[in-house]
Amino acid sequence: MPVYEAFVEVQLRAGIADPQGATIERALPALGFPTVGGVRAGKSFRFRVEAADEVQARGTAEALADRLLANPVMERFSVGIVPL
Amino acid sequence: MPVYEAFVEVQLRAGIADPQGATIERALPALGFPTVGGVRAGKSFRFRVEAADEVQARGTAEALADRLLANPVMERFSVGIVPL
Repeated sequence: MPVYEAFVEVQLRAGIADPQGATIERALPALGFPTVGGVRAGKSFRFRVEAADEVQARGTAEALADRLLANPVMERFSVGIVPL
Repeated sequence: MPVYEAFVEVQLRAGIADPQGATIERALPALGFPTVGGVRAGKSFRFRVEAADEVQARGTAEALADRLLANPVMERFSVGIVPL
């Protein structure tokens, strides 16, 4: 069966406090990055999926992200699929 | 000055143990995902960069990722830039 690589990005929803991003942002001017702002921190995951086609691979990756990788109340996710 | 959105993905280098990914992977068969394997967990960041052009924005984002977001000894990163 074909194998796909899935990439899942998990980000906090807009409006949910992001202390890690805020801490990074506070450090930026002192570190010489005055042109950077709006920092949001999240998680990323990569994994392999065996599936009949790309649509099925995406379905599996989205189900996994929704059930295991992200907390849908506080987080949103996006999924990318590439053939291996 | 133009504003760009930067996306940084930080992943552990190949060969560096990834306990979070391994834990997720062990849970998959029991959760109904027998076709998924090779799980690697990482971090993601999004931020805005003011820059004269996309090349300069990418330079700033890569410097920030290298100095602040990733530990280059254990982690690698990739940077994406899109105009806002």
